[in-house]
Amino acid sequence: MSVLFQHVTALTMDPAQPLLKDAYVAVEGTAIASVGTTRPQGEFDRVVDGKGQVLMPGLINCHTHVPMTLMRGYGGGHDLQHWLSDYIFPAEAKLDQRAVAAGAALGLAEMIATGTTCIVDMYMKTGTIAQQVMDAGISANLSCGGLYFGDPKDFSPDQCTDCRNQEELMQQWHGAGEGQILVDASIHGEYTSSAPLWQWTADFAQKNKLGMHVHISETKLEHEQSLQRHGKTPLAILDQYGVWERGGTAAHCVWVSDEDMDLMARKHVTAVHNPVSNLKLGSGVARVPKMLQAGVNVALGTDGVSSNNSADLFEEIKLAAMLHKGVSRDPMAVTAHQALEMATVNAARALGRNTGVVAPGKVADLILVDFNRPNLIPCHDVEENLVFAARGGDVSMNMARGKIIYEKGEFFTLDVEKIRSEVEDYALPLIFG
Amino acid sequence: MSVLFQHVTALTMDPAQPLLKDAYVAVEGTAIASVGTTRPQGEFDRVVDGKGQVLMPGLINCHTHVPMTLMRGYGGGHDLQHWLSDYIFPAEAKLDQRAVAAGAALGLAEMIATGTTCIVDMYMKTGTIAQQVMDAGISANLSCGGLYFGDPKDFSPDQCTDCRNQEELMQQWHGAGEGQILVDASIHGEYTSSAPLWQWTADFAQKNKLGMHVHISETKLEHEQSLQRHGKTPLAILDQYGVWERGGTAAHCVWVSDEDMDLMARKHVTAVHNPVSNLKLGSGVARVPKMLQAGVNVALGTDGVSSNNSADLFEEIKLAAMLHKGVSRDPMAVTAHQALEMATVNAARALGRNTGVVAPGKVADLILVDFNRPNLIPCHDVEENLVFAARGGDVSMNMARGKIIYEKGEFFTLDVEKIRSEVEDYALPLIFG
Repeated sequence: MSVLFQHVTALTMDPAQPLLKDAYVAVEGTAIASVGTTRPQGEFDRVVDGKGQVLMPGLINCHTHVPMTLMRGYGGGHDLQHWLSDYIFPAEAKLDQRAVAAGAALGLAEMIATGTTCIVDMYMKTGTIAQQVMDAGISANLSCGGLYFGDPKDFSPDQCTDCRNQEELMQQWHGAGEGQILVDASIHGEYTSSAPLWQWTADFAQKNKLGMHVHISETKLEHEQSLQRHGKTPLAILDQYGVWERGGTAAHCVWVSDEDMDLMARKHVTAVHNPVSNLKLGSGVARVPKMLQAGVNVALGTDGVSSNNSADLFEEIKLAAMLHKGVSRDPMAVTAHQALEMATVNAARALGRNTGVVAPGKVADLILVDFNRPNLIPCHDVEENLVFAARGGDVSMNMARGKIIYEKGEFFTLDVEKIRSEVEDYALPLIFG
Repeated sequence: MSVLFQHVTALTMDPAQPLLKDAYVAVEGTAIASVGTTRPQGEFDRVVDGKGQVLMPGLINCHTHVPMTLMRGYGGGHDLQHWLSDYIFPAEAKLDQRAVAAGAALGLAEMIATGTTCIVDMYMKTGTIAQQVMDAGISANLSCGGLYFGDPKDFSPDQCTDCRNQEELMQQWHGAGEGQILVDASIHGEYTSSAPLWQWTADFAQKNKLGMHVHISETKLEHEQSLQRHGKTPLAILDQYGVWERGGTAAHCVWVSDEDMDLMARKHVTAVHNPVSNLKLGSGVARVPKMLQAGVNVALGTDGVSSNNSADLFEEIKLAAMLHKGVSRDPMAVTAHQALEMATVNAARALGRNTGVVAPGKVADLILVDFNRPNLIPCHDVEENLVFAARGGDVSMNMARGKIIYEKGEFFTLDVEKIRSEVEDYALPLIFG
């Protein structure tokens, strides 16, 4: 299948030609074939006329728990501990494969409609999520979030369910769909595990050349308790066990120290900023300007919908670009361009994926944003409009891996009515009924 | 004209019956006739079937400068002083009536599509704005934002253009459309005027029974310079001249003192919280939880689109509900319900308008929000979904003063293509060409 986008405004995120007006972008199979201002030679299976549309890289959500879409708004307004122990954990205990599939599909529908083409997801029953992602057509780095609450002395990889789950997930799914699915090694967090699991996970990643995904210093309590327990921050104590030898994605990083930032820059650990979730749960405000200064690669995530309560990455982009201006009282902190980088090129770099840029040879993960909407008129600056005025609802087309999977409200890989019925008639009664 | 909404979920903001499922809301002329769970007697000109829709009060934007929609994203990324002096002021100097009309209409279109039914606007060429609001069909409190940079000794009301403008605006527009348009007395800010104008404006409001609209303590510099100049905060020094004798709406209040909060509670001065603009311009974070504790009435505003860059009040509602949780690290700070109150009942109270609640006898300012959208499924809690998961684009209908002015993307009082052409072919070349 070949597709030609013509007459688009292309925001490429490619420094060589950042913004092209009246541009042509050709897609051949799963890759971008050409990007320029003259019509490429040849015939195309489909020509998309993009007058008034901005074409840009699809957005990458670097931290989420997609089946938690089932818990949107559930137990909202309670404090964190009460919310987790009285609402979220009891609900999660009732989840089965079918409910996870329904929740994942619902979350994917929202993500696709708001311009996301790749996610990093950590949850349970991960194989089920992998199948939903494959069917939906976007890309994903998936992980199980290893937990170990036992006595460290008793740890045995053979007896550790989460180790078995990680191995099984890797064998079944790593590299599936020509790299559409990648499996990350993962530790849920420093506070929900101990040294033997860290060592095992570091070795597992090293041996199988996997990425690494961990919750890091989300709350002040988590960060301080690690200092008490180990005399080291969560990031630093995991480093001692080799967890970051292949880099990784560290979700939240609200409370990381200056030394942590240096370590992240040195070891290529990406800080995944989740500003909505961090505000909503009362976790705090990550020191993103300082991280950027320290040379840390920063990406964005929505976290689970249960603590957001949306999966629209445009919200995170806007909040990332304005929150730090306000909190540090510096209107130059985190520019519009930097916020867009976090959702595209920085995220692709974090995952080692050949996407996040509109350039020949890159995977054709592309979205169109409809700049004919009243809320995007006038357009003095494409990036300012994308960051501060656009919302997910302005996305008019989503192409993932060269395939148009969403266009003007219509889903081509998902049956939203069927998903809704699975959610409302099966999953919700099972969990909350 | 009579309209019956049936089978809606009604979030009324009326403590007597806050949430009604499968409800009927009848509208007769410009007012709500009945609200309940049984079908009211009689025939209706139109019956709107609202299955899966949430009906709620239209949103009230208590601080904006609607023609500044023309400057969306213009000069973004510069510091405040550079932005104002090199971008905004030169652009504003070129505005004429026709450009103001075009910018106002464009802004109103965005507001109407995202669920706003009433605004508080301060700008120049205000009569032109009044006409656009009348035509669009929503309600507005309009003001000129009085400035006086001359020597206080030389002040003469007869020679003060801004005083003349306020009088003229009042004579021509106050009460127009049976109260659709109200004119507020106004002072742009403490730092852009002096005592004789404050005295004149206080007397003008008192004599003509007008509301009062002023920018208060938006930046730290403004607040501290007032303390230096007068030994008093902006709010307190204006109080000394009787500016708040009839209450009023004080925009921003980022830096108000504890004593200011007590004064606001006592004098019925509403704090208009503009969280997006305050973050984006690097002004800071207003102490909203403290204001609520002190008994201050808090409402919401978008400020001008030039510093937002959106007019979607759902963004302010979500940010108001999560920003203070994050900054104060208290997940219970500013509840979803409180954020909804700010955009509805609190705002109506601030303006003395008989709206903001779905109850018999109230003005029929009503919106429908489409809870069939994937981003609003499931619905464990209507308020949590409205605040944290809904966006302006989920508004499927806007009824202002009993008249349906917008439905599913279609505007009935505005010609968006004509507005766009006025903006792009006339206003933008005039100002920026």
